[in-house]
Amino acid sequence: IILKIKLERGCFTNEIDEAVKLLLQLKETYKKVTGQDYKSGSPPSEVTSTSGNGPTATTEDDDVVDPWTVATSNAKGIDYDKLIVRFGSSKIDQELIDRIERVTGQRPHHFLRRGIFFSHRDMHQILDAYENKKSFYLYTGRGPSSESMHVGHLIPFIFTKWLQEVFDVPLVIQLTDDEKYLWKDLKIEECYRFAIENCKDIIACGFDVNKTFIFSDLEYMGESPGFYKNVVKIQKHVTFNQVKGIFGFTDSDCIGKISFPAIQAAPSFSSSFPQIFNGRKDIQSLIPCAIDQDPYFRMTRDVAPRIGHSKPALFHSTFFPALQGAQTKMSASDPNSSIFLTDTAKQIKNKINKHAFSGGKDTIEEHRKFGGNTDVDVSFMYLTFFLEDDEKLEQIRKDYSSGALLTGELKKYLIDILQPLIAAHQERRKQVTDDVIKQFMTPRKLAFDF
Amino acid sequence: IILKIKLERGCFTNEIDEAVKLLLQLKETYKKVTGQDYKSGSPPSEVTSTSGNGPTATTEDDDVVDPWTVATSNAKGIDYDKLIVRFGSSKIDQELIDRIERVTGQRPHHFLRRGIFFSHRDMHQILDAYENKKSFYLYTGRGPSSESMHVGHLIPFIFTKWLQEVFDVPLVIQLTDDEKYLWKDLKIEECYRFAIENCKDIIACGFDVNKTFIFSDLEYMGESPGFYKNVVKIQKHVTFNQVKGIFGFTDSDCIGKISFPAIQAAPSFSSSFPQIFNGRKDIQSLIPCAIDQDPYFRMTRDVAPRIGHSKPALFHSTFFPALQGAQTKMSASDPNSSIFLTDTAKQIKNKINKHAFSGGKDTIEEHRKFGGNTDVDVSFMYLTFFLEDDEKLEQIRKDYSSGALLTGELKKYLIDILQPLIAAHQERRKQVTDDVIKQFMTPRKLAFDF
Repeated sequence: IILKIKLERGCFTNEIDEAVKLLLQLKETYKKVTGQDYKSGSPPSEVTSTSGNGPTATTEDDDVVDPWTVATSNAKGIDYDKLIVRFGSSKIDQELIDRIERVTGQRPHHFLRRGIFFSHRDMHQILDAYENKKSFYLYTGRGPSSESMHVGHLIPFIFTKWLQEVFDVPLVIQLTDDEKYLWKDLKIEECYRFAIENCKDIIACGFDVNKTFIFSDLEYMGESPGFYKNVVKIQKHVTFNQVKGIFGFTDSDCIGKISFPAIQAAPSFSSSFPQIFNGRKDIQSLIPCAIDQDPYFRMTRDVAPRIGHSKPALFHSTFFPALQGAQTKMSASDPNSSIFLTDTAKQIKNKINKHAFSGGKDTIEEHRKFGGNTDVDVSFMYLTFFLEDDEKLEQIRKDYSSGALLTGELKKYLIDILQPLIAAHQERRKQVTDDVIKQFMTPRKLAFDF
Repeated sequence: IILKIKLERGCFTNEIDEAVKLLLQLKETYKKVTGQDYKSGSPPSEVTSTSGNGPTATTEDDDVVDPWTVATSNAKGIDYDKLIVRFGSSKIDQELIDRIERVTGQRPHHFLRRGIFFSHRDMHQILDAYENKKSFYLYTGRGPSSESMHVGHLIPFIFTKWLQEVFDVPLVIQLTDDEKYLWKDLKIEECYRFAIENCKDIIACGFDVNKTFIFSDLEYMGESPGFYKNVVKIQKHVTFNQVKGIFGFTDSDCIGKISFPAIQAAPSFSSSFPQIFNGRKDIQSLIPCAIDQDPYFRMTRDVAPRIGHSKPALFHSTFFPALQGAQTKMSASDPNSSIFLTDTAKQIKNKINKHAFSGGKDTIEEHRKFGGNTDVDVSFMYLTFFLEDDEKLEQIRKDYSSGALLTGELKKYLIDILQPLIAAHQERRKQVTDDVIKQFMTPRKLAFDF
């Protein structure tokens, strides 16, 4: 009997077969990447560190996109059309944009018109239901890794605010302070403090307190009769093999990281917010986020029907480029990689003039003659995010491409837009009192009846 | 750069080395267990199923002890002295028992006197602190896998009640309904209902409502500002490799199982109960439990100092034998394997007479001549649990061993003890109203000031 138990419980035969398979796979990948056969103990010279998680969305097209890394060798940035194919999402085409305009009676946001939100899942289903007077809710979030947010972090919130206004639906915003605690060398109290600081910036975007619930995971998990139950339900239906495949976790990762995807998934289900949805579990969510967060929601959509919930719909945005160029996503830890929401007018001016990668030519003469390249010019890219006037943007594009507009002049357009935009943000942020934060973060019914 | 990221993130060289190592280990273990070399795809005939988790505490001495399996080929049961060596705990010796008597001024419980609680960790430390007027608290629990509990399930609660009375300290009791949901094919609502039903039986043991907090994980996680924070802290400090080694989890296990050990660990830390301990994190816990739960607390004790908490102390009990014999732990799913707390007097009588494994001889003549064997007689074992009178127990042992006492007479002693004991339990359970349950399960300050 003992022998039997040992054999049953060890699953030795299966495990040996799996180990052999894994070994072969690893050796093959190794060969493919390094061009040489694997020899134990002799890593190739390219290996400089062993940090981070396994490769999840790297393919032969060289872009790396997952929740922890975004990298490409192309100066124009990630190839988003390839990403749509690879992730299996749908392109936001003119037909969808027109339909949104028809259904809402509002001109589509310039993020939609300009392809900044470029990909979606199930938006037609959301619109079908909406036309039949069936409501949905918006869910977005932020990982509070430091006090300071940069302008790129505003993109999902600006778009979410627009969606909330045109559709008039509830919005929940998750601050994953637990995730930051698990991934970074930070104390739990620091992560919570960052969550509150980031919350102020989010509130300063102008969300309606009667329609918006903002929560810290560390806090809300201990306040909600529904959140943890959904977390456990999701955790029951996802194996380590699956998160290994999706997120590249390894056996050396802590069990907190391994189970965290369920915590980002749970707010996709309305029963995580019984106080808002009156215990109903049939309200679908729509998640606007940057495309690097899609792995979490591919997993969520896989689990949803198996636990009796509808799949969340998604809107995916492109990445906001670093001042140094579109090859990488901005980093909140490098002060010169972006414009921060705490920057002064002077800092904004200096950073753009000094650090914004230019698509202009080396000399004024050459620039006048050949024109600049807006495809790689970061200041122009930023204008596509923040200059709402389509005609003016098009005029700038033409003038810069022809050489009529110099780099310094192009940069001045951006400076003139960002300086007042950020000053106004700072002014609104100042007005966010502790009491206002408490209002947004208190679990409560919102201004909708369910 | 992409090549570098891929290599860094994949850690290929490490992984290949690990896979090779794993493979060699597996093949070696396979050979040891089956006595033959491993050939792919040809499992030996002993392999009948592939369920369960990996072997965690199997050694050459043949006993299997972990939270999911307890098995031995020895009719006297598990070899507990070997288990103490294997788990690295300490034997409860006469010196410790005498010291408990000295410190509390109470006669030690017969579970201590008779070696039913046989092993401990750090009890001298608890007693040192207690003598210096430093308090501690008790933590025990139950996995509510069905409505019905059997008499064996009462053992830790009877002992915990005694400890609470002689030391006068707070007690927290965890009902791991989330664990049962993750491990069993049950709905979350069923697991919660089982938790409430089991809670009634626990309350019926006679705990003091002013000193005892009973909680369901599924419920308390959403009610406590401290519990989830400790869960995340523990999850950050335990890797998948560690839980694989301790609990035998595999890559095919769900991420809920993989992260669950942190949930059973968290109540070991007083900051999981800010309402009881006034936010203090320096109150040590003492955990009375069956020895099969020790893996959870070995892990907890490993993590504790790294997150600024003191290690929990432990009291380990032996297993309560099934009616059929001491080879296995009782199963709540086999009605004839034990006496249930819902059994009638008649059922108790019939089960003992019909199913209790006897150490008697085949005929009365032989029994009178050679005597019975109390080491394997289940009725006698049960008497060591439930007959408090040491002299009477010793008399029964002598008379049965000599043959003066027949098996039917021995069984009658047990029946006469269990029938009123269970009837009284049922009477007390009836008086446990919804309101009483609510009192025990409401997070609140207990009758202690911290």
